[in-house]
Amino acid sequence: MLLNNIQEVRDEVRKWRKDGLTIGLVPTMGALHAGHVSLIKKAKETCDKVVVSVFVNPIQFGPSEDFDKYPRTLDNDTELCDNEGVDVVFAPSAKEMYGEGQRLSNDVLTYVCPPFFYVNKLCGRTRTGHFDGVCTVVLKLFNIVQPDYAFFGQKDAQQVVIVNKMVNDLNVPVKIIQCPIVREDSGLALSSRNKYLSDEGKKDALVLSRILNNIKACYKKGITDVNALKETAYSFLNNHHELEYLELMNKYTLEEQEKADNSTIALIACRVEGVRLIDNIYLED
Amino acid sequence: MLLNNIQEVRDEVRKWRKDGLTIGLVPTMGALHAGHVSLIKKAKETCDKVVVSVFVNPIQFGPSEDFDKYPRTLDNDTELCDNEGVDVVFAPSAKEMYGEGQRLSNDVLTYVCPPFFYVNKLCGRTRTGHFDGVCTVVLKLFNIVQPDYAFFGQKDAQQVVIVNKMVNDLNVPVKIIQCPIVREDSGLALSSRNKYLSDEGKKDALVLSRILNNIKACYKKGITDVNALKETAYSFLNNHHELEYLELMNKYTLEEQEKADNSTIALIACRVEGVRLIDNIYLED
Repeated sequence: MLLNNIQEVRDEVRKWRKDGLTIGLVPTMGALHAGHVSLIKKAKETCDKVVVSVFVNPIQFGPSEDFDKYPRTLDNDTELCDNEGVDVVFAPSAKEMYGEGQRLSNDVLTYVCPPFFYVNKLCGRTRTGHFDGVCTVVLKLFNIVQPDYAFFGQKDAQQVVIVNKMVNDLNVPVKIIQCPIVREDSGLALSSRNKYLSDEGKKDALVLSRILNNIKACYKKGITDVNALKETAYSFLNNHHELEYLELMNKYTLEEQEKADNSTIALIACRVEGVRLIDNIYLED
Repeated sequence: MLLNNIQEVRDEVRKWRKDGLTIGLVPTMGALHAGHVSLIKKAKETCDKVVVSVFVNPIQFGPSEDFDKYPRTLDNDTELCDNEGVDVVFAPSAKEMYGEGQRLSNDVLTYVCPPFFYVNKLCGRTRTGHFDGVCTVVLKLFNIVQPDYAFFGQKDAQQVVIVNKMVNDLNVPVKIIQCPIVREDSGLALSSRNKYLSDEGKKDALVLSRILNNIKACYKKGITDVNALKETAYSFLNNHHELEYLELMNKYTLEEQEKADNSTIALIACRVEGVRLIDNIYLED
């Protein structure tokens, strides 16, 4: 069932709740791919009823980012959700989510602001305000759907850490389930933004997973010095790659580490053909 | 029943919810007086079950404010709640609400930040961060108790407007009920901070309600020019009074007005004996 209206979703959810059913939410920006499908399948396994939200959230994009260009494929998305047995696809307009005619800014809207310690690094360093926008829309969706469980992909690792922190800090009554990254056979992590890449670009984009796999292999061989591990990346890069960051951190707290250990996550962001791609890997799993 | 623990409150509320009962929350900082009692009575009228939270919230006090000195009278508060038939008094520690051993700042905690337009005026102008702290703790309490209704006093008029804005912006599933100001026979608005005043100070404090009543009387006589209405205040003030603000605004939007009308609220903050007192009045009611 496709719903565009907040009240309709509330009404539907109230019926389920009355029948004692558990509810799962998969928040997405649409342009669904096999990564999203893995979240939906996990939600179907875990919960009686599943809501997938499809909303390209304007307040998490910076002014120079790809909000207008971001792929919108609602017909395909709803068909895919139907095939997976999703109960409700919630695809609101920006007006439905943020009201009419106002500039979307913290001058006139209440924001949820995750802590600087988690934000001022990795993607947050270049995407100013991005995680405020993410937390704000995710909390709104939680308040609309009131799910027991919500499903997020490990691909956006910093996002999952920050959403978990928000849920904990604000006592939000939901359990966050993180699901593994889904990759093409080539190793490329699935992303809606892969659609921007040419065939050549997709080959160049393999550098992200190769760098991460190599770091993991080096760690398994006994190298734990973080600088040494990071230096192994440079031989993979050429002038088709603009590296934005490569970091090794504690996967729960995003604290930087000097020595990698079994809590370490390696995270990379790199532009290929101007497209900003991210990926990450746990050194132990 | 007095509970200090978040999980115990959740367990209690879950039972009520399962029985289809409606739940009201009265969030307080304790030191309960007849103003709070009026909120509790309204909650009892409106809901099947009533929770009163008693928590002096550290993150809504500035470093030079009266957090340490703020009156704490939990035994009296619980007795008063028992007499009013309150079902649960929730009195958590700061550790229970914010975790242990961390500095309470937006470096390490997720905050709810109401919009600048509503914050950069009235009490928010001198109390930096106050309304971020209020919204954060109120949303936490909403998420813990999950009430159908929450009850706030008109005395903290800016607070109610901001909490309503938060509820609307973040789609929080709760209805805010605003209750009228309760006054002593003298006209003094009840406040936990009145305890700081000497008998002489309580007399000087009458200036707040006198100024507001006079403005309302002048409006009723046909004066609508906001500057003219504000100027009527000065004859009431003497060197026992440090006026912080006197403003006339739209009561829903906190927009400044040149001409008063039936949407206007007059708001005043004034120090007496160093104690910061606030009061307000609707010009039409």
